Amino acid sequence: MLHGKNYIGNSLSSKGKVIFKTFNPKLNQNNECDFTEATVDEVNKAANLAYNAFLEYKNVDSEKKSNFLNIIVEQLLLIEDDIVKVYCSETGLPEGRAKGELGRTVGQLRAFSDLLKKGDWVNASIDTADLHRIPLPKPDLRKMSIPLGPVVVFGASNFPLAYSTAGGDTASALAAGCSVIVKSHPMHAGTGELVSSAIIEAVKITGMPDGIFSNINSSGIQTGIDLVNNHLVKAVGFTGSLNAGRSLLNLANKRDEPIPIFAEMGSVNPVIILPEILQNDCDSIAANYAKSITLGSGQFCTNPGVIIGLKSDIFTQFVNSLSSSILDISPSCMLHPNILKNFEKNKNKLISSNSVKVVADFKSSTKPNYSSQALALVGGLDFINNRDLQEEIFGPFSLIVECEDMQQLKSVVKQMSGQLTGTILASNNEMSLNKDLIDILKERVGRIIFNGVPTGVEVNASMLHGGPYPASTDSRFTAVGVKSIDRWVRPVSYQDFPNELLPDSLQDNNPKNILRLVDGIYTKNKI
Amino acid sequence: MLHGKNYIGNSLSSKGKVIFKTFNPKLNQNNECDFTEATVDEVNKAANLAYNAFLEYKNVDSEKKSNFLNIIVEQLLLIEDDIVKVYCSETGLPEGRAKGELGRTVGQLRAFSDLLKKGDWVNASIDTADLHRIPLPKPDLRKMSIPLGPVVVFGASNFPLAYSTAGGDTASALAAGCSVIVKSHPMHAGTGELVSSAIIEAVKITGMPDGIFSNINSSGIQTGIDLVNNHLVKAVGFTGSLNAGRSLLNLANKRDEPIPIFAEMGSVNPVIILPEILQNDCDSIAANYAKSITLGSGQFCTNPGVIIGLKSDIFTQFVNSLSSSILDISPSCMLHPNILKNFEKNKNKLISSNSVKVVADFKSSTKPNYSSQALALVGGLDFINNRDLQEEIFGPFSLIVECEDMQQLKSVVKQMSGQLTGTILASNNEMSLNKDLIDILKERVGRIIFNGVPTGVEVNASMLHGGPYPASTDSRFTAVGVKSIDRWVRPVSYQDFPNELLPDSLQDNNPKNILRLVDGIYTKNKI
Repeated sequence: MLHGKNYIGNSLSSKGKVIFKTFNPKLNQNNECDFTEATVDEVNKAANLAYNAFLEYKNVDSEKKSNFLNIIVEQLLLIEDDIVKVYCSETGLPEGRAKGELGRTVGQLRAFSDLLKKGDWVNASIDTADLHRIPLPKPDLRKMSIPLGPVVVFGASNFPLAYSTAGGDTASALAAGCSVIVKSHPMHAGTGELVSSAIIEAVKITGMPDGIFSNINSSGIQTGIDLVNNHLVKAVGFTGSLNAGRSLLNLANKRDEPIPIFAEMGSVNPVIILPEILQNDCDSIAANYAKSITLGSGQFCTNPGVIIGLKSDIFTQFVNSLSSSILDISPSCMLHPNILKNFEKNKNKLISSNSVKVVADFKSSTKPNYSSQALALVGGLDFINNRDLQEEIFGPFSLIVECEDMQQLKSVVKQMSGQLTGTILASNNEMSLNKDLIDILKERVGRIIFNGVPTGVEVNASMLHGGPYPASTDSRFTAVGVKSIDRWVRPVSYQDFPNELLPDSLQDNNPKNILRLVDGIYTKNKI
Repeated sequence: MLHGKNYIGNSLSSKGKVIFKTFNPKLNQNNECDFTEATVDEVNKAANLAYNAFLEYKNVDSEKKSNFLNIIVEQLLLIEDDIVKVYCSETGLPEGRAKGELGRTVGQLRAFSDLLKKGDWVNASIDTADLHRIPLPKPDLRKMSIPLGPVVVFGASNFPLAYSTAGGDTASALAAGCSVIVKSHPMHAGTGELVSSAIIEAVKITGMPDGIFSNINSSGIQTGIDLVNNHLVKAVGFTGSLNAGRSLLNLANKRDEPIPIFAEMGSVNPVIILPEILQNDCDSIAANYAKSITLGSGQFCTNPGVIIGLKSDIFTQFVNSLSSSILDISPSCMLHPNILKNFEKNKNKLISSNSVKVVADFKSSTKPNYSSQALALVGGLDFINNRDLQEEIFGPFSLIVECEDMQQLKSVVKQMSGQLTGTILASNNEMSLNKDLIDILKERVGRIIFNGVPTGVEVNASMLHGGPYPASTDSRFTAVGVKSIDRWVRPVSYQDFPNELLPDSLQDNNPKNILRLVDGIYTKNKI
């Protein structure tokens, strides 16, 4: 079923000497297929193809681009069974998760397909001429978004489908009119290969230019570095660790021509729990949070890693309830032995800190690669004094921060770095009395949640998945939802252009029937 | 009239030991006032004040922010005569230019004041809940833009008003809800001081928090470095040279917390002239371009620095006509002896290149600090082979690139780096026959102009002033027009928030009556 080769544009290629395999964490053994790392020549060839394909693809009509995305969906669904099988063998995740994530991936592709049909996403803006203006005539100016160029997408370890090969970054970049080179994640190279085959099939069926998509295998870091340094590459999408994301940001900025990099680098997603709501709802909140903390073995970037409350009997009751709920949940298989190893290392480092007390610790499972979820507790002042306690522990673990009073709780929140999400659990009364707390938390997060859990990232236009550094490298953009297309485009203005030479979206008679800002008013009217 | 002190928030401060003066290039002598450089302590104090002021100001109602901007206008107009006088003494520019630029500055402030009244700029987006969705309920998500935090604005040497103290960067950042620290340009510290006094007066009159605006004097580079490195600063605006802009970009990205920097770094603004239009209009095009090249002594970032044509009798006639027109224009005073010195140095370096021929060279004026405009010519192939010929020469100079044929002309355009503008002069017939040329040029510029001159940057929503690197550090944003506010904001999502705790812009009944994207449809309707 798998061949282990790279897709350099539409062509299979395996000129390299470095071979690697993926790993089945449930069976605790390597999977069968040999994957061949791409060579420098293959990487450069993919970049050249991507640039030339971009020059053609950017001018392809958006109806055709929309159809291309839909055909990718069709091709993915044709090989759904194979994808699910390989996905499970490379992740240890259950079939339901694989199917759910494929559904999400397909939903994202369709959402961008619809966005292209609607056409409003180009942000058309027109200011008409006034030849009689004093002292100088006013020119006709028309502006819309155009694609940046070839985009490199790094597959994410924790989302082999929705944030990898045909995931949000690829779907939004293709919708924007960019070509895409995926640096496949080595942990799920087989899943990436199958998804790539569906994209390449769609490229051929719809007659898109060869090179609009490439899939590069690599088990080390040099190939990613080569891709980001290639002068034909114009933007980068990444989901992963702070260390890797920061390294890519540094690379992108050291280039002769710096390029935008959108790295989503995880977070501890602080959750603030106030006392009044616990009085009514202690056990159900604890049960919900036990599920959220252990969901997907805690391998979500929105996993609640820090829970902050006020020292009180009811908070102690909550901690006890959460501890027993979390120990009731069976451990589950983690994505890879290395991820489990890092989880254990980081967890043990944190709980070895003097001020930290373990309050729940599931004993290691007898099954290899199964995680042992845990909870620890620290006082507010100790948390404030030790910034290391803010580091993300990727896996099913949360640190509970017990504060002496509201003032200390606010100090805890004030010294937190940028986060993807922040959550407040409170009664309406408590919220009204603590508006400044909302304000303090909001300043540090991309999404603020009331009485919910941070896991579960809705895909729509109102989602902001990102946040102040180090949650992401550019808080001004989202990685999830149709607005993520804004990462891959730039506006261009046309001054005094003949109507017939303007793009459809800017022509007088508005042939695409899109909403445009005309002389300061949003309208679909013709000029 | 001038005191030479820093504004650290509302307070005058001059604790430093380093003193400098501004220079009157027309009189060829220093101006009177001693300006005191800010100390490290003063810089840190301004940053602390700016951060605390931001925490208050960001929550100030937008009607009040709008009024604040209008009161700045009022206060500027009250001291218009003083501003114009000091402006002229610090730049050598004529009174008409000073008044025109003040008008532009005032217009920009008013445009942002209006933008705040309208309120649409927050890009409100709402996706309503669906509690019955299968398999999981859909949460209520609402998103809008919020300000980033304290912004550092570097005054521009060539626009003491419109791109300095109360210029586009400051106006857009204050409108966004950010506090502003201006690093005043040392060449026009007096103009900066007067404009600052008007802003501080407006701060006091409208009761805005102390620290929402500071003005820092400095004649060297260290103060700017200290400002960009201050951890409370969250974004930077800059207009100036590529070298300085790139240094600031590197600084901003080396911080523990990298911050967005928006640097507009100039350009050679290529102009392509095709033969047919010259047949009808040779002399008037030449006359217009002579004016554009020498406008403001060529000290505009959109100055046409490279003019590209096809070798032919008519193009030779155009070059002759442009040469004689440009020599008919009297030289004018440049901003500063150092700017003149750099102009002469860079011009002489370029024309000393073997392949470059001088076609017009105004002999040096007897008046000190007056520029001598010039034109030079180079063959297409020589231009392609020497990337140094693409470097901006800041002043009244253009390099004419004479190409053998259309293929060579396209090659010339293809190897040009990112530009603020690109212009095509052509008949409608020529444009229709050369659509690929438009496409090649568009790929490299922020604004593409048909049959006009690149100088003259209209201030409205359809303007894109920026462009691919090295024209700017982030081609996704504009430095001119109301959309420049997008540089200083980030979106934040609210999930399942009680209606009464949401900002006005996101509440069910749409109390601000703004356009919102609700469940995928743009509407002003209530929920």
